[in-house]
Amino acid sequence: MHLAKEEYLPNISYDSVIFGFSGEKLKILILEYHNIKTFALPGGFVKVNEPLDEAVKRGLSERTGLDEIYLEQFHTFGSMDRFNPSVMRSILAEQGHFLENHWLLGRFITVGYYALINYENVVPMPDELSDSIEWYDFDQVPQLMMDHNEIVQKALDHLRTNLDQKLLSFNLLPERFTMKELKQVYDAILGETQNRANFQRKMLGLNILERHEKLFLGGSHKAPYLYSFKKRN
Amino acid sequence: MHLAKEEYLPNISYDSVIFGFSGEKLKILILEYHNIKTFALPGGFVKVNEPLDEAVKRGLSERTGLDEIYLEQFHTFGSMDRFNPSVMRSILAEQGHFLENHWLLGRFITVGYYALINYENVVPMPDELSDSIEWYDFDQVPQLMMDHNEIVQKALDHLRTNLDQKLLSFNLLPERFTMKELKQVYDAILGETQNRANFQRKMLGLNILERHEKLFLGGSHKAPYLYSFKKRN
Repeated sequence: MHLAKEEYLPNISYDSVIFGFSGEKLKILILEYHNIKTFALPGGFVKVNEPLDEAVKRGLSERTGLDEIYLEQFHTFGSMDRFNPSVMRSILAEQGHFLENHWLLGRFITVGYYALINYENVVPMPDELSDSIEWYDFDQVPQLMMDHNEIVQKALDHLRTNLDQKLLSFNLLPERFTMKELKQVYDAILGETQNRANFQRKMLGLNILERHEKLFLGGSHKAPYLYSFKKRN
Repeated sequence: MHLAKEEYLPNISYDSVIFGFSGEKLKILILEYHNIKTFALPGGFVKVNEPLDEAVKRGLSERTGLDEIYLEQFHTFGSMDRFNPSVMRSILAEQGHFLENHWLLGRFITVGYYALINYENVVPMPDELSDSIEWYDFDQVPQLMMDHNEIVQKALDHLRTNLDQKLLSFNLLPERFTMKELKQVYDAILGETQNRANFQRKMLGLNILERHEKLFLGGSHKAPYLYSFKKRN
């Protein structure tokens, strides 16, 4: 990561909340700076001539090794509480930078993005600034730097509120899936087990699913139906 | 409006989409710079030590005279297409500023906010930079500067998608209202007339309304029920 002052817009950053799911628990991708024992979301900065959305994709690729991920912008954080240059000073000192007027010590308004991916399909790789990158169970997220825990919570609120509309974009399920598989996604993201009958009634009522043939698993008489998301106009 | 370079964060701005409604048509508040025949959303810049949300409230108050308005952040716009310093150069020239390296001629990533208010309750006042401020019918919005028409459309998409959840926050209806009054809001914002029976069924199904006594208007036997929004936890 090259961080020359004249290459980047000052005072603007982005942070990515990468949710992972693979049939059971909701997880989240966290970077760690080992020497200073600091946990953080993968984030970065916008180059002078770079569109914001492309900066976020580039940054996520550089810092986590993840490419071609559908990211959704959800909120921009601009309070003064998040201005805490001591954390960045420690990170820079670890890299051998001790300039008191470094542009990274300024105030940053950060644009939050989130994604929801199948974590079995990807192998995250830490960049040179951070020492490790790991999937954490959502209910065991450590204390993160600055306001990053708040950013995570707001991303989750956004995902929960818009789950019916967003699920298709995130491409998390196979093209055809059972109602049980769909319910596992909802249970994990909403953080509570939905009643099976109510869930099925609600999902069918949304008119976003198309029903296909049953999934035959040998001789079972209780083969479940397969569904896909209806194509949108 | 004082726009000294050292007072503001460079490269970051905000724009406000103020929707107005008063029982019939959806309107929107637009500024005009008469001499250069340019229409724009009311927007502004963030002071070095000012929280983003407060900057937006201050800016809206300074540029439109509107105070105590509930604003909702909806999207941050950061494409390179929106970098077009010639418009700002004309606005600055009108003010007697001809500096080619003026910080306002830089690239701006802008944070979009919207509000929905009863336009009969407010009297907008233009600031010293612009020459007039007017409510426009939504279907007669003029060509706005830069990407402001796109910002308006995205705000409307956001409002339409989230109307069931947002309506309470915007405090647009009297505390008790009829189903007809509620439907007028939906019709105006969705841009199409809802079927009366379907609308009532949908709204009651959302479980967000509390039913009160009927509204008696003299001897009518068809007095409509009054509703209020249920208090949220």
